[in-house]
Amino acid sequence: MAAAERHLAMLVAYDGTQYHGFQRQRKGLVTIQELIENALAPLFEPPVRVKGAGRTDAGVHAWGQVVSFHGRGSAIPAERLPWAVNAHLPPDVVVQRAWEVPRDFDARKSATGKVYRYYIWNQAQPWPMFRRYAWHVPRPLDWEAMKRAAALLVGQHDFASFRDLGSSAKRTVRTIGALRVCSPADLCREIRTPAAATTTPPACALWSVPAGAGFIEVEADGFLYRMVRIIAGTLVEVGLGRRSVDSVAAALALGDRASAGVTAPPQGLVLVAVFY
Amino acid sequence: MAAAERHLAMLVAYDGTQYHGFQRQRKGLVTIQELIENALAPLFEPPVRVKGAGRTDAGVHAWGQVVSFHGRGSAIPAERLPWAVNAHLPPDVVVQRAWEVPRDFDARKSATGKVYRYYIWNQAQPWPMFRRYAWHVPRPLDWEAMKRAAALLVGQHDFASFRDLGSSAKRTVRTIGALRVCSPADLCREIRTPAAATTTPPACALWSVPAGAGFIEVEADGFLYRMVRIIAGTLVEVGLGRRSVDSVAAALALGDRASAGVTAPPQGLVLVAVFY
Repeated sequence: MAAAERHLAMLVAYDGTQYHGFQRQRKGLVTIQELIENALAPLFEPPVRVKGAGRTDAGVHAWGQVVSFHGRGSAIPAERLPWAVNAHLPPDVVVQRAWEVPRDFDARKSATGKVYRYYIWNQAQPWPMFRRYAWHVPRPLDWEAMKRAAALLVGQHDFASFRDLGSSAKRTVRTIGALRVCSPADLCREIRTPAAATTTPPACALWSVPAGAGFIEVEADGFLYRMVRIIAGTLVEVGLGRRSVDSVAAALALGDRASAGVTAPPQGLVLVAVFY
Repeated sequence: MAAAERHLAMLVAYDGTQYHGFQRQRKGLVTIQELIENALAPLFEPPVRVKGAGRTDAGVHAWGQVVSFHGRGSAIPAERLPWAVNAHLPPDVVVQRAWEVPRDFDARKSATGKVYRYYIWNQAQPWPMFRRYAWHVPRPLDWEAMKRAAALLVGQHDFASFRDLGSSAKRTVRTIGALRVCSPADLCREIRTPAAATTTPPACALWSVPAGAGFIEVEADGFLYRMVRIIAGTLVEVGLGRRSVDSVAAALALGDRASAGVTAPPQGLVLVAVFY
């Protein structure tokens, strides 16, 4: 008699710097999916195939990637699974939690929404600790203009202008539920300024998030290929005064990739959360 | 006629992961001091020797290291110096600012105080993005007990128990002006919890500092060799219930290294600020 099939999901955090994205690629390119499947191989009857909620690109990070899979041949309790799997994973890919799911749960198809965040380091000199986790934009950004432009993208729109080639999606209408632009000043206001603010380092906050880091956070029901990075690139062009706020609405209306801004580099992007 | 001598200071941030600490070592061991001196060599008449405010150990980071030096043969304005020097530095060591100082300014001797912070990641599983910037303590810590123990160390004391061998200091009396223990819960209270807090990732805060990171921040007029790391190691032993709060006062009174706790690993430590 065949061993009972189990249906599991795992919350995975990773530093994507070293990898060729989530999804399996041709041989020789190490991906997060492959690492996770290989780490599950000693625990379940092969083959084990995992599905990921977000197909993060090469160099993109995740705090809250969700993967699902079906497995036979192991009775390990779901709550012990992170230790068992992490023993076979490198230190930059870590299973945070695991739980049983219904048979028809699919990390990607069952998701009702996702949140991505794009970090920008906006000071003249780079910040060493953020070199893998933010886009360094050395010229001062007009964050208020970026906020006005961001507001134009909220809601249900055809985001055909905001996707790169390589997308397989036929439908390009998506709904952005929230697009939050958080400037370095917003972060410093929101987080307490320490008494030692007279010191030379450009520090603010309990976490001393250095005053210079900001982010763009996008919550949507789904994302087109590189959509968040194109939104970030477009908003940064607005912030640098290279394009007007209105041009963002125009780009949306045109439905043409060339009308939107550059694709921001991968290291600033992180998959923050997935909703079900 | 010899070129006029200039007196300069620079604020330097670095990720210490790859280096053998700040201070020059024997050949083959790359140090921050050596990298900075080599980066200044094309700009000023050699030799250029820099002094650093804090002699950070191998693997220790800095947001606000201050270095001073005397240089001849360059008229470059101080405010342009970061670009000129950074062009010769690796991406994990970055000059943030530079300014002229009086002839007798010495980054180390002129300092009246320094702030170090020690980060702890206190969740069962490690967090990939903090693997180079925090000590992973997987068992739950009693942060309130750690706060009570920390309070015993504030003020002027003989910290002979809280220094490792290798210290050259003859006097072991130091004054801790502030010792702040900030738990993950404190961070989550202080920083706003996002609306999406129902999602699976263990996230809190605008920065979504994952709920699990805490720190110990020590402000003092001076520090003995590995003093902050021994304080952190001792407080973590209190937090784990391996030693009592009172044992910390006892360790202080005994003046014996064996009476204090372990030396916490280097990657959690960062030199935050220097006061003059």
